[in-house]
Formats: sequence, structure tokens, C-alpha cells
Amino acid sequence: MIGVGVIGYGYWGPNLVRNFMEIPGARVVCVSDLNKDRLAVARTRYPALTTTTDSQELIRNPQVDAVIVATPVSSHFALGMQALEEGKHVLIEKPLASSAEQAAKLIDEAARRKRILLVDHTFTYTGAVRKMRELVTAGSLGEIYYYDSVRVNLGLFQHDVNVIWDLAVHDLSIMDFVLRSRPIAVSATGISHLPGKPENTAYLTCFFDSPFIGHVHASWLAPVKVRRTLLGGSAKMVMYDDIEPSEKIRVYDKGINVTNDPESIYKLLIQYRTGDMWAPQLDSTEALRSEAIHFVKAIEEGRALTDECESGLRVVEILEAATRSLAGRGHPVELGARR
Amino acid sequence: MIGVGVIGYGYWGPNLVRNFMEIPGARVVCVSDLNKDRLAVARTRYPALTTTTDSQELIRNPQVDAVIVATPVSSHFALGMQALEEGKHVLIEKPLASSAEQAAKLIDEAARRKRILLVDHTFTYTGAVRKMRELVTAGSLGEIYYYDSVRVNLGLFQHDVNVIWDLAVHDLSIMDFVLRSRPIAVSATGISHLPGKPENTAYLTCFFDSPFIGHVHASWLAPVKVRRTLLGGSAKMVMYDDIEPSEKIRVYDKGINVTNDPESIYKLLIQYRTGDMWAPQLDSTEALRSEAIHFVKAIEEGRALTDECESGLRVVEILEAATRSLAGRGHPVELGARR
Amino acid sequence: MIGVGVIGYGYWGPNLVRNFMEIPGARVVCVSDLNKDRLAVARTRYPALTTTTDSQELIRNPQVDAVIVATPVSSHFALGMQALEEGKHVLIEKPLASSAEQAAKLIDEAARRKRILLVDHTFTYTGAVRKMRELVTAGSLGEIYYYDSVRVNLGLFQHDVNVIWDLAVHDLSIMDFVLRSRPIAVSATGISHLPGKPENTAYLTCFFDSPFIGHVHASWLAPVKVRRTLLGGSAKMVMYDDIEPSEKIRVYDKGINVTNDPESIYKLLIQYRTGDMWAPQLDSTEALRSEAIHFVKAIEEGRALTDECESGLRVVEILEAATRSLAGRGHPVELGARR
Amino acid sequence: MIGVGVIGYGYWGPNLVRNFMEIPGARVVCVSDLNKDRLAVARTRYPALTTTTDSQELIRNPQVDAVIVATPVSSHFALGMQALEEGKHVLIEKPLASSAEQAAKLIDEAARRKRILLVDHTFTYTGAVRKMRELVTAGSLGEIYYYDSVRVNLGLFQHDVNVIWDLAVHDLSIMDFVLRSRPIAVSATGISHLPGKPENTAYLTCFFDSPFIGHVHASWLAPVKVRRTLLGGSAKMVMYDDIEPSEKIRVYDKGINVTNDPESIYKLLIQYRTGDMWAPQLDSTEALRSEAIHFVKAIEEGRALTDECESGLRVVEILEAATRSLAGRGHPVELGARR
Repeated sequence: MIGVGVIGYGYWGPNLVRNFMEIPGARVVCVSDLNKDRLAVARTRYPALTTTTDSQELIRNPQVDAVIVATPVSSHFALGMQALEEGKHVLIEKPLASSAEQAAKLIDEAARRKRILLVDHTFTYTGAVRKMRELVTAGSLGEIYYYDSVRVNLGLFQHDVNVIWDLAVHDLSIMDFVLRSRPIAVSATGISHLPGKPENTAYLTCFFDSPFIGHVHASWLAPVKVRRTLLGGSAKMVMYDDIEPSEKIRVYDKGINVTNDPESIYKLLIQYRTGDMWAPQLDSTEALRSEAIHFVKAIEEGRALTDECESGLRVVEILEAATRSLAGRGHPVELGARR
Repeated sequence: MIGVGVIGYGYWGPNLVRNFMEIPGARVVCVSDLNKDRLAVARTRYPALTTTTDSQELIRNPQVDAVIVATPVSSHFALGMQALEEGKHVLIEKPLASSAEQAAKLIDEAARRKRILLVDHTFTYTGAVRKMRELVTAGSLGEIYYYDSVRVNLGLFQHDVNVIWDLAVHDLSIMDFVLRSRPIAVSATGISHLPGKPENTAYLTCFFDSPFIGHVHASWLAPVKVRRTLLGGSAKMVMYDDIEPSEKIRVYDKGINVTNDPESIYKLLIQYRTGDMWAPQLDSTEALRSEAIHFVKAIEEGRALTDECESGLRVVEILEAATRSLAGRGHPVELGARR
Repeated sequence: MIGVGVIGYGYWGPNLVRNFMEIPGARVVCVSDLNKDRLAVARTRYPALTTTTDSQELIRNPQVDAVIVATPVSSHFALGMQALEEGKHVLIEKPLASSAEQAAKLIDEAARRKRILLVDHTFTYTGAVRKMRELVTAGSLGEIYYYDSVRVNLGLFQHDVNVIWDLAVHDLSIMDFVLRSRPIAVSATGISHLPGKPENTAYLTCFFDSPFIGHVHASWLAPVKVRRTLLGGSAKMVMYDDIEPSEKIRVYDKGINVTNDPESIYKLLIQYRTGDMWAPQLDSTEALRSEAIHFVKAIEEGRALTDECESGLRVVEILEAATRSLAGRGHPVELGARR
Repeated sequence: MIGVGVIGYGYWGPNLVRNFMEIPGARVVCVSDLNKDRLAVARTRYPALTTTTDSQELIRNPQVDAVIVATPVSSHFALGMQALEEGKHVLIEKPLASSAEQAAKLIDEAARRKRILLVDHTFTYTGAVRKMRELVTAGSLGEIYYYDSVRVNLGLFQHDVNVIWDLAVHDLSIMDFVLRSRPIAVSATGISHLPGKPENTAYLTCFFDSPFIGHVHASWLAPVKVRRTLLGGSAKMVMYDDIEPSEKIRVYDKGINVTNDPESIYKLLIQYRTGDMWAPQLDSTEALRSEAIHFVKAIEEGRALTDECESGLRVVEILEAATRSLAGRGHPVELGARR
């Protein structure tokens, strides 16, 4: 039985605690938060929990085998590193760290100490995203043309990172998981409507070394909640609407057929093709539950989650580049070579 | 009775002919198109029409007082200029011309010859867009924060211009009409999936000298048709969904209230405010009919449509800048001083 | 070339004229309407038309080979019979007549005079309804459990018939076409909110001699337009939403599996099954065009449309029974033997 | 602190337990269920709970002041009566009992013993339904014309009652609450697709002694989940869509205006009126929480919930009449005089 400690019982922490309480092989033994009221809420729900306002106490607690970091981004590195140094396995809320340098250090430290490190890219454990990867891998969509996502709603404004780090990060993790390719450059634009605060509305374009483009619109300041992704391919196109209670994934047999115009070798004839739409049934297991099981199993088997860690690093590299581009009004920023 | 000649009877031409046939004070007398089949279709519907494959013949036809140019963008300038030189009034399909220089020449020529020139910014005549302008002008939305629009569908690929010139142009005309302010710079990204062809998928950000941002996603390669605009203000926010058969405009009493944290002068407290939603009834007159009446009335009264022409020019300036930015992967392009 | 005369140029008449003008083999030569303004509209659109306020003149017009009756229900029989007696082919707006007796007389007269008679059950010519029939015929839905339809909107109140005769008639024609079975009894309830006027809101249940039930909700007094039909089967279920611009037909791989409980022979175990959803591409030809071609072809070939006429009669039989049940607050009314 | 015992920990029981655990003034002390696995689930969530498979034990438990009956309908009366006889307060799942006679006995027994009795008409505690009542009471909708509701989904088939008792009961409780008037007769139709089992699909019409009609479509055998109610009035109309995450209530300024035709005293002129739509913000407190607080407060204050009990009885009277009508294929069944 793996003892789990959760640092941060704000918005996402309760979901982490609930899931790690309900899966086999693990049990949450300790929760820390700076806010005592939050700890009181946690104890009401789980009377057996140890709670503390001191994250160091949690990290040093000998009953804690694995530490989950569910705090603002700026503290991910320090807390994650302390936990690794204390010999704990670590699961860190997305994004993995505030910089690629920090992310790399965490990965290296985990490898050196043979501890399991995982970043919480929750969406990659959903039935919908797994279905998209399955369709791409099987070639069902043909050549992939674009990924376009809108992820907007009202709130929650973050104080330490802009909206790309908070919301677009989900799409970067999904793109990395589904397409398994890395952008070569990004361009980002955005705005803050509160003086001195990070951008609350932003647009991010990812360029690749293939005729594929990725784009994310992220905002904390929209009147409606939208979670809608288009994944276009030469053979089929997918609409993924995460707000829909059912039929989240719709596969459209639509596209264009391009032929040479018989009357002119210089001209292409474009024909529009529309066929059936298909909404495959999806695995409806809660993503966080699948992820928790995945993490616990890796600890039990002593198997490093290398792919997931490298994905976490790639995502942070893009976020860093995006923030630089944002400051330059969309000026394109190239991503360095893969480490 | 004003005699109207329509050049181009492809996708949009039939709508122009139908509307100018049904309004008082005008009558379509001649239609030209390079394609004889299209002319046959026109004659079946309107047996009294004169048809020709030669646009010059139409322009010189003495029964034609006003020429409507509904052809690909690249021919707008030449045909519009010929018609003006022949002493005709001119209505040109959006965008007004292929370059700001051409647009300015058309405007100057119309002024010199005292002929009415109008660019067909159709959406600015819809009940929905007029309601948005009314709300903004009345201050109902508070300070305007952003304009965000998605205008995507499958087809129709254009051969002479990219998708920004074809689809995003609608949003640029709407933004100009609703907000009455001019961007100072743009950043655009996009992609073509057909070698040698213009971009079919593109993203355009407009920067202003105020804390406002405009963004348009335009594509000919989406599996679903989307026409959805968000207009965010400090007091209220609007969602304009042009696909909805009714309730195209929804006004949300939603937003944030920002106050200084009493415990810390350095911190802002953000509160999320949600209230009623309201969908005002809209004028449902067909936009093109209102526009046709507007054009005919200006001819009858001899009143130059200066505002509309200047708007047509500003939109072309943005399109030119966007195309340059597109070539530079989002590199921001500043718009020159107002002429 | 078959000369067509259309009696009634109100709501539906213009669609009939437009379609019969555009198909090969026919041409509308004459339109009659009691309202001179409507005739003026018709002439503006089609300058070559003969128009008259006297339907008798149209019926006797030697250029008219086929008469289309698009008038209120109460006049269907008289006008249709006059046209048949004059030796014309006849297409009558739904429902065929005001009573089963009248409908049967029309059918007999057409047979006696060897003239083509057709009732305008428009929906049976749509791609959506034809797809439903195809699915049922192929057995894809399994045993058919129910047909449930909601057909409501604001207006247009009829003065001579209740809302079942005006709106539910569409569903009766669809059920007859898709399921090819005849109800044995009906129960109808409803209300009129205008003293002395026919029911504007009504509910109709059709009973069959199999474990299948049909139900229609029809209203002229709803704030939203709904055209939504559920067709449930033991293997699959269909939702047909005619308001949707695309994906009008959705086939759900959903249902129940019933097994005997191993622990008790008296108990059934019900398992809920949910699988993929599939929206087949549909033929998008305008229904009225297909119907017009069908009618013209039958005239050309001299082939009586017996099935369609019998369907028209069956529908009127149900409507008559429904009106009797309505007066008895749902008291069930049995349908007599098939003629 | 009121001690609460919950009989039945199946579908609805967990919601009852959670809410009574979280409100002030009460605490769930005991849960009973015939299924030991369900009890184990309850204990995992709430380690301090006493659990038992014997409902009698729970009823006699001296720590239990109030008994909640969340079992199949057929056991409501016996369990509720036993609890009252033991001197407990009682909250019974909808519907109150299997017959009006039983319901009346429960009410009388509670009055005699001065114990609080409440039936769980959950929807009457939602912000949406309360807003509808508020609009009706304030006269905002004008004269009320109809209530029409569709409440369908796939499952859960009940074994002891038909779908009217299981699903339409919600609408009967809403109608009673919103309109405060009692039907004079009902007509119901329906079908069972499983031999010997209660109807899984049914239609219920309620007649009143005013020009108002109520109708409910209830089904356990639909491919999609629909919870949509139309409430039509002479001044405004409401659509209540409980599936919508926000804007559940939409108020349409739509309707008809009826005037006498100036040209004919026998004719009414009907004009269709369409105006704004308005979606008021709703109280989003969980309904069951409000209800639990209401119940606990009544116990604390010793105030009998007479109105709620009478409503529970009226609803059962309608259900009984509906079942009789169902057996007679819609034959109308009159409701007796108010007791």
C-alpha cells in the first residue's frame, strides 16, 4: 500500500485525493495546504487524514511514499525537487515546472534517485484523447493537416502565469500525445486587461517541419465555456467537444480531393467530399483515476515513466517560447534542438 | 429607375441580382459572366435580362447606370475603374481591391467623377451586427476587451487570394463598423495544404493602441460550419452565432469585478460575476436588401458614401499587412499612418 | 412538355411553382389565387405566367394538363374532383381530402378516368425519411418499438382544420411510408385557446396490432420550432431532427438486452447497451423536386400511383378518427377494416 | 442535532446521505439496504455510519429521529407507517405511496402523532422550477395555456411501477407546484415492450376546468436524454431545459395577438408576436440540499408541512387515474372530488 501525500487542497487537490483514495494499492495519508479552512474541509470528508500547513512536514512524513504537488506553477520545481531529494516518488500538476531548465533537472534527479516522476497531463488519459491518438496512429485520418483548439471560460485568473501556461498547456500535452511530433517554432499573441497581471486572453500558433499547423485560443474572460478541438486530416476530420455529455468525438468523412485540371496543367481542381459522420463510443473511466492507477503501477514495478517526463519537458519548452513570442506581439520564436 | 448591371453570376451574383430586382427604384438590366451556362441560368430566372460574356459590353451598355462587380478579387480594381471612367456608379464585392493603393485610387476616381462607390461589406447591414454596434455605442458593454471570431467551413477554396482575404475580411469589416477604431499592427499565421496555393487556414491578431485585441480564425478546411464571434466588454459580453436560426445575439451579464485586496495593497481581488442572459430581437431584413436600398438611395440623392469607402480602404490595409505577417510566421507588421 | 396549373399561391404554392418550373418535362403555365396581390407577386417572378382569380378558368385552360391544388383542406375535394372530371391529372396538397369518403371518391374517379392522382406527402421524398425507411426495411433497427414525433412552432393557425390535420398529418404520412403498417385505433387529446376555433395544440397516439406505438405532439403555439422524431427499435434507435442543417439522421447503437435472471425464473434482467452513433450522409435533393419529377414521370408513363393514393386515404382515415377521439378527451377510436 | 436514518442506498440514497451529512442541524447515523455491497460502499465513504440490512432495526434505532425512505414505491407505505408509529419524522421518496388511500393514511397518521411528513418532490426545490412559479405567480406569462414536458432517456426500468409513476411523477409535482391547480381528468396511453412488465413508454394528458392542458411524455427507452418543458402563456412562453448546464430557463416574449377582423365580425385575425428572449440567472443551490434544510427546519420548529403533503396526495391521485386510463387505451378517467 503506497502512502500518498498531497500538497495543495484548492481546486484540483480534492479530485486528486478522491481518486487516490479509491484506487487499489494506494491511500492518501496526508494533505497540506496553507489555508486552514481547506484542511478542515479535507478532514470532514476523510477523518483519518493527517493535515498540515507545512509542506515540508508532509514531504518528510515517513508514511508518505509519493508526493503529489498541486500548487501554483511557481512552486512546482522547489517542492518536486525537495520530495525527490527526500526519496519520494513525485506527481506534479501541469505544467511540470516554470522553465525547461527546471523540468530537465527534475527529470534528471528522478532518474538519478530511481524515483518515479510524472506530470499530470490529465487529458491524455481521457477516452476522447486516446481515441484521437488511436485514429491518428491507425492512419484513419490520412495526413494530419491541423489541430485547432478553443479553451475558454470565465475564470479562474492565475496570478503567477499567463493563460497559455494555465489552459493552452492542456492542448500542448494533447498535441504531443496524439501527434508525437515537436514544433519547431511558435508565435503567440495576447493581452492582459488588468495592469501588471499576466495575459488572460491569448492565441498560440505552433509551426512544424511538415505541412501541419497547431493553434490554441485560451482565455479566462469568455462568457461561455468552450472546449472544442478540430483535428483535420486529408482523409477524415475530427471534432472533439469536451462539453458534450456524450458523443465527445465526432469523425467526419469530409475533405477535399485534388486533381489536376485536364484542361490546364497549371490548375488544380478541388472537389469537396462529404460523407457519413461517426461518433465512436468512448471509454468513460475518469481520466484522473486511470492516471492514478498508471502512477501507482509504475511505482510498484519500479518502471520509469520516461516518455511522459519527456513530454512534460517538451510542453514546458513550448510554453517558454510562447511567452517570449507573446512579449514580441507574435514575433516567431524558434524552439532549440531536442535535448 | 436605376439600371443595374452585374458582372459575375457565380456564387454571390444571383443574390445580388435577386435583391436588386426586388427593391424599388432599381432593376437589373444586364448580367455578364465568362461562363455561358451561368448566363443561361440567369435568363431562365429572368427572361427579360440582357446577358453577355463580355464585361466591357455591360459596362458600356447605356441602360446600365450602376455596375456591380462580383468577380474574383484580382479583377475588382480594373473593372471598378473602367466602370467609373465610363461614368457609372459602382458597387464592388468585398474586399474593395487587391491593395490599399488600388482602393485609394478607386475612391479618388469616384470622388473626382462624383459617382457613388460602395464596397459590399454585407454583414454590416445585418440586424445582428447593427445590434452589436448599438450596444457598443450606447456603452452597454462597458470598456471593450476583445473581438474573437471563428469563421470556418469546408470550401470554397479561392485561387487568387488566401483565406484571410476571403473570410476574415468579413470580421475586419464588422470590427471596423462596430468598434470604429483602427489597428496599429497585425500578426498572422497560417498554412496551405496545397503546394503553391494560398493559405486555406489562417489566424489573424489585430493590435490596437488600447487594451483591446481582435482575432479571427478563418478556414476553408473545417468539417463543420462555424460563424461564432465573442465580443467581450468590462460590463457585458456578447456571443454572436450566425448559424443560429434565431437568437443570433446573446448578451451575457457576466464578467469580473476587480478590487484591491484589503489585506495587501499589492494584490488584486478578482470576483466573477454572472447574471442574466438576454437575446434581443433583431431586424430580420435580408442584409443585401438593406444594402441595395442604401446604394440606390445614395445614387438618387447624389450623396457620396465616404465612411463606407474609407472603411473599405482600412480593411484592405489590414489585409495587406496580414499577408506580409503570414509570410513571416506571425512577425508583427505595423500599419502605417492613416491617409 | 406537361402544362401545369397551380391553384393557390399562398405559403406552399410558390415552392410548387418554383419546382415545377425547374424540372424537365413540365412547365407551370397558369396560377390562380383569390388574392390579386399574390398573383402580382407570381407575375413579377415569372412574367410568362397566366394568372386568374378564378380556379374554374385554370381548370378549364386547355394548356393545363395537370392541376395542383394548394388551397385550404376544405376545398381539396371539390377542386380535385372538378379537375379530374375535366380530364386533368391532379396533385393535391396534404391531406388528400376532408374525409375518407371524399378521398376514396377521388381515387376511384382518377382510376375510372385513367388520370394520375397524387397527394403531396412531401416528407416521404426527403433523404432523411427515405433513409429511415431503408434502415427499417433492411432490419437494421431490429423490431420497431415506437415512433415519437414533436412538430411544434409559432403559427400558422388554420381556420378550417385542427393542428392534427395541419401538422401531425406529416408524421402520419411518414409513419405510413416508413413502417408500412396501419393503426387499429387512435387516442387524441388537445385544446383550443381561441373560442370556437380548431385545436391549436394536440397529442395523438396510434395503436397497432403489434407491440409498437406511435405518438405525435403538434402545436401552432410553441415558442421554439421543433421537428424531432425518435424511432426506437430493439437493435438500434434513430433520432431524426429536421431542424439540424446537417446530420439530420442519427443512428444510435443503444438499447436494452433482456435475459432471464439465473437466480429466478420469474425475473428479467435488463442490461443497458450503448455503442457508437452514426449519422449517414443523406440525399440532399429538395423533396418537392423529387416529388415533382415522380409525378411528371407517372403522367408520361401513364402509370397510376396506387400506393401513394392508398397512403393518402389511410392518413385521412386516421385524421378522421383522431378528430373524433379529440372530442372525447382521448376516448379511443377504432379504425374500421381496410377498404 | 437530528439523527437521520436512510433506508435504501441504491441510486438516490447516496445523494440523500451526502446532503443530510453536509447541512447544519442533522447528521446521518444509520443506513440500511438489503444489499451488503451497497452498505460497504456507504461505510467506506462515511466510516462513522451504522449500517444494517434490516430496515426495522434502523427504524427502532433510538439515535434515529427522522427516517428517510428511498426504496421502491411498493414499500413506501409500510416503511413510512412503521416509522411514524415508532414516533419518527419521515421523508419519503416520490411518489408518496402506491395509492391515494395509502397516501391519505400516512398524512393522517403524521398529523395524529404530530410528526413531520414530507414527500421528496425534489424538482420543486430547484432554482429553475421556483423561477417558473415566480413568473406564473407574478402574472408575467399572462393566462397559462399549456405545460408540455418530455422526460426520456435509456433506463432505469422499474419492476414495480410503470414509467408514469417513475418519471412523469416529476412533472406532476412541478405542475402542482407551479400552477397550483388540480386536473379534473386524465387520459394516458403507453406500451410495454417486455411481456408482463409495466409500461416503459407513456403519454399523459391532464385536463383542467380552464382552457389549460398538461402533457407529459415519459420513457425509459430513448436513445438520448431529454428533460425539456414548455410552459406557454398568453403573454410569454418558457422553455425549461434541465440538460443545459446554464440558461435552463428561457423566457420568450412570443405569442399571438387576436383581434376581430374589421371586415368580418365572424372572423378572428391572428398576429404572431416575437420579441426578446431572456434567460434569468437561477439559484444554483443543489435542490436536495434546500429540501433537506427545509425538512430539518420543520422538525426543529414543529411545523407540519401540510401543503407539501397535500401535493403528494394529489400527485398520487393523478397517477392512479393515469394507470386506469392507460389500461383503457386513453379512455379518459375523471378525478374525484378533492378530499
